[in-house]
Amino acid sequence: MDSSIESTSAAKNADEESRRRRMGDIVLNTPEPPALWHEISVSIKEEVFPRSSEPFSLLTWILSAAQGLFPVLQWGRSYSFKYFRSDFMAGLTLASLGIPQSIGYANLAKLDPQYGLYTSVVPPLIYSVMGTSRDIAIGPVAVVSLLLSSMVQKVVDPTADPIAYRKLVFTATLFTGIFQASFGMFRLGFLVDFLSHAAIVGFMAGAAIVIGLQQLKGLLGINHFTNKTNIVSVIKAVWVALHQPWHYGNFLIGCVFLIFILCARFMARRNKKLFWLSAIAPLLSVILSTLLVFVMRADKHGVKIIQHVTGGLNPSSVKQLQLQGPYVGECAKIGLVCAVIALTEAIAVGRSFASINGYKLDGNKEMIAMGFMNVAGSLSSCYVATGSFSRTAVNFSAGCKTTVSNIVMAVTVFIALQLLTRLLYYTPVTILASIILSALPGLIDVKEVCNIWEIDKMDFLTCIGAFLGVLFGSVEIGLSAAVIISFAKIIIRSIRPHIEMLGRIQGTDIFCSIRQYPTAAQTQGVLLIRIDSSFLCFMNANFIRERITRWVMEECDPNDKKPGEKIHSVVIDMSTVMNVDTSGTAAVGEMHKELLFLGIQLAIANPGWQAIHKMKRAGLVERIGGEWVFLTAGEAVRACLAAKDAACGC
Amino acid sequence: MDSSIESTSAAKNADEESRRRRMGDIVLNTPEPPALWHEISVSIKEEVFPRSSEPFSLLTWILSAAQGLFPVLQWGRSYSFKYFRSDFMAGLTLASLGIPQSIGYANLAKLDPQYGLYTSVVPPLIYSVMGTSRDIAIGPVAVVSLLLSSMVQKVVDPTADPIAYRKLVFTATLFTGIFQASFGMFRLGFLVDFLSHAAIVGFMAGAAIVIGLQQLKGLLGINHFTNKTNIVSVIKAVWVALHQPWHYGNFLIGCVFLIFILCARFMARRNKKLFWLSAIAPLLSVILSTLLVFVMRADKHGVKIIQHVTGGLNPSSVKQLQLQGPYVGECAKIGLVCAVIALTEAIAVGRSFASINGYKLDGNKEMIAMGFMNVAGSLSSCYVATGSFSRTAVNFSAGCKTTVSNIVMAVTVFIALQLLTRLLYYTPVTILASIILSALPGLIDVKEVCNIWEIDKMDFLTCIGAFLGVLFGSVEIGLSAAVIISFAKIIIRSIRPHIEMLGRIQGTDIFCSIRQYPTAAQTQGVLLIRIDSSFLCFMNANFIRERITRWVMEECDPNDKKPGEKIHSVVIDMSTVMNVDTSGTAAVGEMHKELLFLGIQLAIANPGWQAIHKMKRAGLVERIGGEWVFLTAGEAVRACLAAKDAACGC
Repeated sequence: MDSSIESTSAAKNADEESRRRRMGDIVLNTPEPPALWHEISVSIKEEVFPRSSEPFSLLTWILSAAQGLFPVLQWGRSYSFKYFRSDFMAGLTLASLGIPQSIGYANLAKLDPQYGLYTSVVPPLIYSVMGTSRDIAIGPVAVVSLLLSSMVQKVVDPTADPIAYRKLVFTATLFTGIFQASFGMFRLGFLVDFLSHAAIVGFMAGAAIVIGLQQLKGLLGINHFTNKTNIVSVIKAVWVALHQPWHYGNFLIGCVFLIFILCARFMARRNKKLFWLSAIAPLLSVILSTLLVFVMRADKHGVKIIQHVTGGLNPSSVKQLQLQGPYVGECAKIGLVCAVIALTEAIAVGRSFASINGYKLDGNKEMIAMGFMNVAGSLSSCYVATGSFSRTAVNFSAGCKTTVSNIVMAVTVFIALQLLTRLLYYTPVTILASIILSALPGLIDVKEVCNIWEIDKMDFLTCIGAFLGVLFGSVEIGLSAAVIISFAKIIIRSIRPHIEMLGRIQGTDIFCSIRQYPTAAQTQGVLLIRIDSSFLCFMNANFIRERITRWVMEECDPNDKKPGEKIHSVVIDMSTVMNVDTSGTAAVGEMHKELLFLGIQLAIANPGWQAIHKMKRAGLVERIGGEWVFLTAGEAVRACLAAKDAACGC
Repeated sequence: MDSSIESTSAAKNADEESRRRRMGDIVLNTPEPPALWHEISVSIKEEVFPRSSEPFSLLTWILSAAQGLFPVLQWGRSYSFKYFRSDFMAGLTLASLGIPQSIGYANLAKLDPQYGLYTSVVPPLIYSVMGTSRDIAIGPVAVVSLLLSSMVQKVVDPTADPIAYRKLVFTATLFTGIFQASFGMFRLGFLVDFLSHAAIVGFMAGAAIVIGLQQLKGLLGINHFTNKTNIVSVIKAVWVALHQPWHYGNFLIGCVFLIFILCARFMARRNKKLFWLSAIAPLLSVILSTLLVFVMRADKHGVKIIQHVTGGLNPSSVKQLQLQGPYVGECAKIGLVCAVIALTEAIAVGRSFASINGYKLDGNKEMIAMGFMNVAGSLSSCYVATGSFSRTAVNFSAGCKTTVSNIVMAVTVFIALQLLTRLLYYTPVTILASIILSALPGLIDVKEVCNIWEIDKMDFLTCIGAFLGVLFGSVEIGLSAAVIISFAKIIIRSIRPHIEMLGRIQGTDIFCSIRQYPTAAQTQGVLLIRIDSSFLCFMNANFIRERITRWVMEECDPNDKKPGEKIHSVVIDMSTVMNVDTSGTAAVGEMHKELLFLGIQLAIANPGWQAIHKMKRAGLVERIGGEWVFLTAGEAVRACLAAKDAACGC
C-alpha cells in the first residue's frame, strides 16, 4: 500500500510536471512578434487612412479627407436657425469682450491696437470652417502675446524700429502656422504632450505674474520701462520710475475700472445668469473711461491715451514677410516655441470643454486648423491667434452651439474696425492694463497646484521649475526647465527602476510585492524577484543585474543564515518586462552565469512578447534551459521546489 | 428543493462576492509607499555607507573606506612569491607589447614618442594600488588617442604650436581625471551606461577605420595630411598625396612588418601556447626595422625616422596646466568626452575579464582609480590612460594574478626610458603605423554587429548611427548620434507603449495578451486591456486614453455586432503600471467619464504601489468606486460578469 501511495504521488508529480511543461511550451512557442518596420508601417497606415470596413476607394478617401479637413461639411448640413440664434447671441457677447481684450493684448505684444483687432477677424473665420471644437473662441491671448514680444524684441527693438519689429512678428506668425499645420499633418500631436499638465500650470502662473508686472507700465503711466520680463528687472524699473514725478490720473482710472471689472466678474460667478455682466464689463469700462477722459480733458493732465487707431479691412502683409535675411532662423525658432505654447493652450481649452459637452476633440485636426488660420493670419496683418480660455468660457456660458459664434464675432469686430476706431482716440492706455490684469487671475490656479503637490511630488517640481524659470529667468528658460525636468523624470525612472521581492498572498496562488502587501509570504529557498520596468535596456540592465546579485549574495551569506534557509533558486518574474535590448539580454546571461557559479538555479516567469523573442534569438533561453521558462511565477516557484526536492532525494 | 438550490447558489455567490471584496480591500489598504525624499535618502545612504550588520562606528567606516579606496590593502596581505613570479613574467610580456604601442599611440595623439612611454609609467602604478580589476593593463589606447588629438587640434594646431597643443592635452587629461573620479565618488557610474553596448560596437568599428586611415600618413610617408578625421577628407588627402612623388621605402617596410605582426597574431590564435609570439612581434618589428634602417642608411633614401626621443624620468607638467585662459571650457568639454569613452572602454574590458575569472568589478571604485591615475598622469607629462583591450588580453594570457604585473610593466618601461631611448633614433615612423594598424582588427567586431542585428533592430540602428557618424562626420558626431538614438529609443517606447487586449488561456485562470498567445480567448462582453508601460505619464496618457476609447467605440459599433455581444465592462489590467503622474490620473478619470457616458463599467486590476496610491490621492478610486478595484484581472472579469448578470436579473 505504501508503494501504491508512492506511485500515485509519483504519477501525480509527473502529471503536474507535464502540465507545467505544456504551459512553459506555450511561452516558448508564441508566434513571432511583428517586426519593427511592420509596426511602423501599420501605425502610419492607421493614422493616414482612417480605418473602415469597406474596401479602399480613392473617392471615399478624398471625401472623408475633405470632411476631416473641413468639419463644417459634416455639421453644416444639419445646421438650423435655432442654432444660429444661440450662436448669434454668443458671438455678440464674445465680440464685446474680445474687442477690448484684443486691443490690450496687441499692446502687450508691443503692436498698434488695430493688429489685435485684425487678429480677431481672419483667424476665427478660418477656424470656424476647419476646427473640430464647438466652443473654442479664437483670437489673441495674453501668454502668446507676451511670448512673442519677449522673444522678438531680443532681435529688434520695437520702440526703435517698429516696422522691422512688425515684420518679424508676421514672419514668426507664419512659421507658427507652418509648424502647427505640419504637426497635425505628420501626426506629431504628441509633441504637445511633451509639456505636461503640471508644467503648463506652473508656466501659466509664472506668465500671469510676469504679464501683470508688465501692466504696471500702463497702470502707472511709466515712460521708460525695461524690456526684460523677469521679476527682478521689472521691480527695479518700477522702483526707479516711482522715484520720478508721475501722474496719479493713470493709476486712479486704471484701479477704479479694474475694481469695477473684478466686481462684475465676482457677481457673475455668484449668479450664473449674470455671466453677461462679466463679458460686457471690459467694453463698458472702455466706453466709460473714454467718455470720462474726453469730458474732463484728462489727456491734458498727463493721462495717456491711445490716440490714432487705423481703421478698415485687414491690409495684406505678404510683402512684409521676411523669408530671407539674417533673422529667418530666429523667426523659425520663435515660431516653434509659439506653435507649441499656442497649441498647448488651445488643445487644453478645447479638451476641457469637449469633455463637458461630451464630444471628442481630434488633436491632429485641431493642429491643422490652427496652423492654417495662423498662416492665413500672417498674410493679413494678424499675429499669432489661438483659443483663449476666458473667451471660450464666455462663449460656452453664452450658449454657443457651433463655431458660427466665431464668425459672428469676427464680423462684429470687422464692423467695429470699419466704423468705430475713431471713437478709441481718447481711450486711456491704463484701461487696457486693467482689462489685461482682470484676465490674469484665471491663469493662476492655486487649487490645481495644491492638487499636484498632493498627488505627485515630481510633477510639483516640474510645475515649480516652470514657474520660477519664467519668473526669475525668462519665458524660454521656464519652458526649458519644465521640459528638462519632465524628461529627466522619465529617464530617471528608466535608469533606476524598482526591483521588488515577491511573496505569495496567503490562501491564494497570487504573488505580490512584499513591500506593497506585507501579508505576502516569501517561499523558503526561492528568491522571487520582479523587475518593475517595461524595458530592460542599456540604461538599467547593469543596475538590475547588480542589485539582484547583491540580494542573492546577502541571502547566501553563510554567517547569517542556517543552512536550511539558504536559497537554491532565483525566479525572475518578467511579466512587466515587455522588451529587452542587447544589453538587457547580456545582463540576464551574465546573471545566469553568476548564479550558476553559486550553484543557484535561475528561472524566468512570464516574459513579454518581444522579451522572450529576443532572449530566444540571443540564445539565452537555450543556455538557461527552455524548461526553466514558465508562464506564471507560481509555476516557476513550484518547479524550483520540486527540483530541489528531487535533488535532495526526498 | 428548487428554492434550496437557489439559496445555496445565492449563498455561494455571496461568499464569492465577499471573498472578492476582501481581496480588493487588500489592494486599497496597502501601506503608504515610501515618499520621494525617503527613497532618495535611502539610496544615498546605501551607496555611501556600505551595508553591514554591525552598528556604525567611525573607525570601522574609515578602515573599510580605506580598504575600498586601496584594494591592495586587502589582497596585498595574502600576496605570495608564486603570484609574483606569474606577475613578473606577465609584466615583462606586457612591456614588450606596450613600449612600441605606446610610441605608436603617442604618434596618433600627435605627441612626441616619449609622452606615450610616460603614460605607460605613472598611471599603471597608481592603478595597481587603487584598481579592483586583476587583469586590466593600463596605458594609452588607440581610440582615446584619436579622440584627444581630433578634439584638441580643433583648438590649437599641433604642427604650428606643439607646446601650446601639449599644454592643452595635459589640461584635458586633468579634466578627464577629475570627471572620472567625481563620477565614481558621486556614484554616477550609470553615466557610462548611457553609451549602450551596441553604440560602443559601432563607435569602435568606426574609430578603428578612422585610425587606420590616419595611419596612411605614416605608411605612405605623406608630409601634408588633413587634420580632419572623416573618411572623405582623408581619402581626398591620400589621393592628392599619391599624385605627388613619394617614396616606396616607407610603404614597403610598413607592409612587410604589418604582415609579420599579423602572421604572428594568427599563429598565436591557432596555438594558445604561442601567445607570446603575438606579444613580442611588435617589439621585434621595431628592433628589426631599426636595424634595417641603420644598416641600409635608408633614412638617406626617404624613409622617415623617429629621430630624437627624450629619455629620463617623467618630467613634472604641473606648470603646463592651463587652468585659466580662453581654452579652459574647451578642455573641460574634451575631458568629459574622453572621461566617458575611456571609462566605457576600461569598464567593458574589466567586466569581461572579471566575468571570465569569476570575480566582481566595482564600477564606482574603478572610476575613482581611473580618475586618480589620470589626475596624477596630467601632473607628470602623461596623457589620458585607460584599460587597453589588446594588452589586457595579453596580460591575461601571460598568466597575471594581480595588478602587480602593471607595476612590473611600468618599471620596465621606466628602465627603457632611462636607457634605451637613444636606440630608437633610427626607428622608421612607418613601423608605428604598422603596429597601430595591426591592433585595429580587434576593434571591429563584425560577428557582434550581426548578433545585434539578429537580436534588436533598434540597437542595430544605434550601432550603425555611431559607426557612420564617426566615419563620415567626426568622433563627436558619432558619439552624439549614438546617445541621441539610444535616448530616442527609450522616449519613443515611453510615448507609444503597446496596449494589449487580454484573453483567458483555456483551462486556467491566467489572462494573457491575445496577440502573444493566440489560444487565449476573450471573455464576451468584457474588454480586458493591459497597458504595457511601467509609467502612465504625460507622454503617453493621452495616447493610451484615445486608443482605449477607440477600441471601445469599435466594439460598441451598433452596425457591426449583435446586441448580445456588446461590451458592458472595460477592465484595465494595471499590473505593469508601477507609477502614474497627474496627467496619468487625469487620463484615467477622463476615460472613466467617457465610459460612464456610454453606460460601460470600468474596473481596475492590480495597479502598482505608487499607481494605486496616487489614484487614491487624486480621488479617482472614490469616483470609480473602491469595489471596482481588484487584485487580479480574473477577479475583475468575474465581478463584471456577476454585475451584468445581476443587472439582467438572471
